[in-house]
Amino acid sequence: MKPIRSFDELTKYLQSRESHNSIAVVCPYDEHTKYAILRSLNEGVSHFVLLGNQNLMPPELLKKELCKHITILHYENDKEAAQKGVQLVKKRKVDILMKGLINTDDLLRIILNKEDGLLPQGKVLSHLAVMDIPTYPKLLFFSDAAVIPRPNLLQRIKIIEYATTVCHQFGIEKPKVSLIHFTEKVSPKFPISMDYVNIVEQADEGAFGDVIIDGPLDVKTSCEYESGEIKGISTPINGQADVLIFPNIESGNTFYKSVSLFANAKMAGVLQGTCCPVVLPSRSDTGLSKYYSIAMACLIADKNKTIA
Amino acid sequence: MKPIRSFDELTKYLQSRESHNSIAVVCPYDEHTKYAILRSLNEGVSHFVLLGNQNLMPPELLKKELCKHITILHYENDKEAAQKGVQLVKKRKVDILMKGLINTDDLLRIILNKEDGLLPQGKVLSHLAVMDIPTYPKLLFFSDAAVIPRPNLLQRIKIIEYATTVCHQFGIEKPKVSLIHFTEKVSPKFPISMDYVNIVEQADEGAFGDVIIDGPLDVKTSCEYESGEIKGISTPINGQADVLIFPNIESGNTFYKSVSLFANAKMAGVLQGTCCPVVLPSRSDTGLSKYYSIAMACLIADKNKTIA
Repeated sequence: MKPIRSFDELTKYLQSRESHNSIAVVCPYDEHTKYAILRSLNEGVSHFVLLGNQNLMPPELLKKELCKHITILHYENDKEAAQKGVQLVKKRKVDILMKGLINTDDLLRIILNKEDGLLPQGKVLSHLAVMDIPTYPKLLFFSDAAVIPRPNLLQRIKIIEYATTVCHQFGIEKPKVSLIHFTEKVSPKFPISMDYVNIVEQADEGAFGDVIIDGPLDVKTSCEYESGEIKGISTPINGQADVLIFPNIESGNTFYKSVSLFANAKMAGVLQGTCCPVVLPSRSDTGLSKYYSIAMACLIADKNKTIA
Repeated sequence: MKPIRSFDELTKYLQSRESHNSIAVVCPYDEHTKYAILRSLNEGVSHFVLLGNQNLMPPELLKKELCKHITILHYENDKEAAQKGVQLVKKRKVDILMKGLINTDDLLRIILNKEDGLLPQGKVLSHLAVMDIPTYPKLLFFSDAAVIPRPNLLQRIKIIEYATTVCHQFGIEKPKVSLIHFTEKVSPKFPISMDYVNIVEQADEGAFGDVIIDGPLDVKTSCEYESGEIKGISTPINGQADVLIFPNIESGNTFYKSVSLFANAKMAGVLQGTCCPVVLPSRSDTGLSKYYSIAMACLIADKNKTIA
């Protein structure tokens, strides 16, 4: 498989498949979610089950000519709609779950329910995002900008494993994973830099499979060759990172918000650790970003099926 | 004074003055520092005293025709050169100190020396940076991306005061200061969000003078009106922040590195708290960025003189 290097290539890849994915959307009441659903239908990448109050859904989604591609399940109550969405995943009636205009905490509580939720025991819930940045030659994955505020060493290892797996699914044979810090210096004053050394050693011994991991590195040294050269830093990342692992949620979120705003980057993101990809957009995400998140989830769902 | 909204306007403002600033540069051995010095001379914004080993300085800086604007003081030893630079500031022979190719820690140790250094007792040393971003309509100041890893409440208040003062010096009458967090929610789980509430209350009572302070806000809501609108957040920042105060050094540094790299932003920065502006560039800063830092320091030095 040729590596997918942009969101356009992602759509083309999905269109080249013979099958479609099926996506359950909980409470698709807002314009951005509507855009994402209609765009996905137009591009031919997925079918939908829409759960929630029919009277609150945009009329364009209820049109008769769409009934081949959209199934509507009417629920007056948001939480019931969410519960049904989770059930559809458990019964393998859909491949992907997506949040519309429902309170995030309400939906998460149902997803995380120990008895009939979507997070298998022992799994770490995390968030993986990817950006298509006009000034960078390939997709740039990053984590965790949304779920775990201060990952501990074990959580961080899981986060790296999730990112590596998805990179492989995107056709990146040996992803370059950069462990982000504000400096390249390792110091006991910053325990995270010691964790990074530990992780890099494990990676060198093969614990993470087919991947190159290095750090601590800053964002510029990770993504620009000259930056490392000027500083006299030699790293196998070589300014060509595929993945940035951020030290904390503040830095991950700052990256996501500032690069999407100031560099006109396009964004996609899914939850990781759950038994199916879950699209959980933030309120300020655009319709386009919600569509790209669906596309990302479709690729992951397909590749997981192939393994299963 | 009309607000300065770009680095070009900053240069023009400095050119409109009748006087020049005088800058001591310690160990100006590298090409980027050379570029910044020659550019400053060309633009007519400052004169220089260069301290260090003459044999290591680029020959272009030693040309006879520059002797009206450049004084060379030869020192074989880097630390002696640094010490002399600090002395020149103390004796008011120069207005600004700048680091060339000398180890940052060595220079900082001399600057921070309690007896004859540049940090008055009780002052907090911090770093203030400013970006000229092609996709943002005005200059965007931010702090602290370089010096204090985890500012406590008192340090954060100082950081805000420094930024506000410099904004006023740039002609921004009522700067909008945004306290950055990864979400707009206030929660005891994140003590910093409680500190922010405290600071906003103090600001409302006038403790910070002529300034609008709000937070917690994320970077997008701070700098894009639509983002706040979609989230239903009403803030006097209105997507038009002049200043971003970051929660920790990792997020500040991520902002600085990713926006300069991916959004082609130009950067300037100076130390704050010292008795004169100190330009302490990072090794990977471009020559242009070092020139803009000189320009920023010149403006600050001038305005401080007016007050003194």
